Amino acid sequence: MKFNTFFNRFVPHERKFYPILSSMSANLLEGAGLLIQLSKTTRKEDYRGIYLQIKAIETKGDRILSHLFDELHSTFITPFDREDINSLGEELDNVLDSINSVAKRVEMYQPNGLPKQVVELANLLHSACLLVQQAIGLLDTMKKNVKTVKNVCQQLHDIENQADDVYENAIIDIFDREKDAINLIKHKEILQEIERATDRADCVGKIIKTIIVKYA
Amino acid sequence: MKFNTFFNRFVPHERKFYPILSSMSANLLEGAGLLIQLSKTTRKEDYRGIYLQIKAIETKGDRILSHLFDELHSTFITPFDREDINSLGEELDNVLDSINSVAKRVEMYQPNGLPKQVVELANLLHSACLLVQQAIGLLDTMKKNVKTVKNVCQQLHDIENQADDVYENAIIDIFDREKDAINLIKHKEILQEIERATDRADCVGKIIKTIIVKYA
Amino acid sequence: MKFNTFFNRFVPHERKFYPILSSMSANLLEGAGLLIQLSKTTRKEDYRGIYLQIKAIETKGDRILSHLFDELHSTFITPFDREDINSLGEELDNVLDSINSVAKRVEMYQPNGLPKQVVELANLLHSACLLVQQAIGLLDTMKKNVKTVKNVCQQLHDIENQADDVYENAIIDIFDREKDAINLIKHKEILQEIERATDRADCVGKIIKTIIVKYA
Repeated sequence: MKFNTFFNRFVPHERKFYPILSSMSANLLEGAGLLIQLSKTTRKEDYRGIYLQIKAIETKGDRILSHLFDELHSTFITPFDREDINSLGEELDNVLDSINSVAKRVEMYQPNGLPKQVVELANLLHSACLLVQQAIGLLDTMKKNVKTVKNVCQQLHDIENQADDVYENAIIDIFDREKDAINLIKHKEILQEIERATDRADCVGKIIKTIIVKYA
Repeated sequence: MKFNTFFNRFVPHERKFYPILSSMSANLLEGAGLLIQLSKTTRKEDYRGIYLQIKAIETKGDRILSHLFDELHSTFITPFDREDINSLGEELDNVLDSINSVAKRVEMYQPNGLPKQVVELANLLHSACLLVQQAIGLLDTMKKNVKTVKNVCQQLHDIENQADDVYENAIIDIFDREKDAINLIKHKEILQEIERATDRADCVGKIIKTIIVKYA
Repeated sequence: MKFNTFFNRFVPHERKFYPILSSMSANLLEGAGLLIQLSKTTRKEDYRGIYLQIKAIETKGDRILSHLFDELHSTFITPFDREDINSLGEELDNVLDSINSVAKRVEMYQPNGLPKQVVELANLLHSACLLVQQAIGLLDTMKKNVKTVKNVCQQLHDIENQADDVYENAIIDIFDREKDAINLIKHKEILQEIERATDRADCVGKIIKTIIVKYA
């Protein structure tokens, strides 16, 4: 038995949350696009410029999240529903924070080139952010789209598994190849942070799946 | 005054959560047992096999957790009670995730042997998981067993303190002894992750204590 | 529309939470003061003594938090309000945990001196803890002090931004200057942990801001 039909409550009063969540996911996708650009850069002097663009995106994300919270608290909505929108907003922001952390590390550590797997991971992350955007776009009509949304979440999870494999091989690679400990630290931490971003994108999928299970 | 008597609500409708939580703790214990085995391995060629067994346990844990969530959301239960079962399930899963992370690092880094304190920490973690299993087995009858459960939680906390000391000495040790920075990184991160697992087992104890305070 | 006026509920029954939160913030401030002392120490043999003092403060903090939880669960208060006091208590404790982690690392790694930015970061953190104390002191009368509390939270956020800049420069500095990988690891991790403490102090501000938005 479902004692709380989120969808019914959600539609009349809470439509306004959809555009906010959508703008969060669009902003996130833009950050993921810049990360691909950063991962392919071969000139160290370009690191800073791309990092600053990503940082601006991250700051914009903070503003959108803060707007979401303000709206959540000024709207009549059950604590239960609020909690789910809250989690979704926070986790979307966490993905973007991780993207910012990757870029910040590249800028701070100034590595001479990046492991080739960083490009692969940035591409996987971008695909994940596309799926996140798609899933959030479907929340509005989730009752009709349960299957599609679940499928998108499954794809997010598959990407996370692929990213795990790429990450593991990258780490094995640098411990095998890199004899300079300081370079190893730089590469390892950049890889760890981008892997964490894909992990958090998968978490977004899990939260969406939970919402679907509860309310659709 | 208690405005929500969890126990009374819990018994009639929510009995089904006990076996799920129990199977999570049994699965966790199996993972902790394998970690002892890994910590004692002297042959690098055995790392992968044990890691894959732990990974299988971790995947099984994810499935049980997902089953718990499905049951939680399809059962009439207050958001308040749900939140506690939810936290308990998630934290149990976090312990197992940390065990998997330890094993994954051993497999990725291929260290030439492990610091001797890893065996000690794995043994402490296994004892902690036994206590977790015991406490979860008592939730069903917590009203009668408040004292015992509190005592088990206290023992969990004592183990965490012991693990902290072992961990600190291990770190002091490797910074003192290990002059190769890459080996130091390998050992340090493996130690950090196993210490984190014991920390999370203590968190399980704290959640159980909170449940006891609220509902028994 | 606000369906839950925290303030009205809070005053009659929940006044007792203020002194507990205040003693948490006073204890935290004491820890931050000791961290400044540690950051300025030039004698390695003094590390241990200051660390043990900080550890005692951290243990005291755990006791106060546990007392807060006990009071929360034995008081008639909505789950919604409870959640906010809970988050505030936990995040205050997280700041102190990070301070303890910094000191523990100094004690474990026994670095030959600390990067000069550690002093700067410890001073910023102490200022943040003073602001936290001020904000918590105002919760009691928040209806009259909305503007002041919001302003204090903004100052906390500004400090976090300053700390970010100091931290970034410190990391760039050590990667530039430090050629010994093991020393680099020591300094990097100590800096990371103190930066994390300032981050968490900012989180305290965010939680307080949320409470203000909801209830004042």
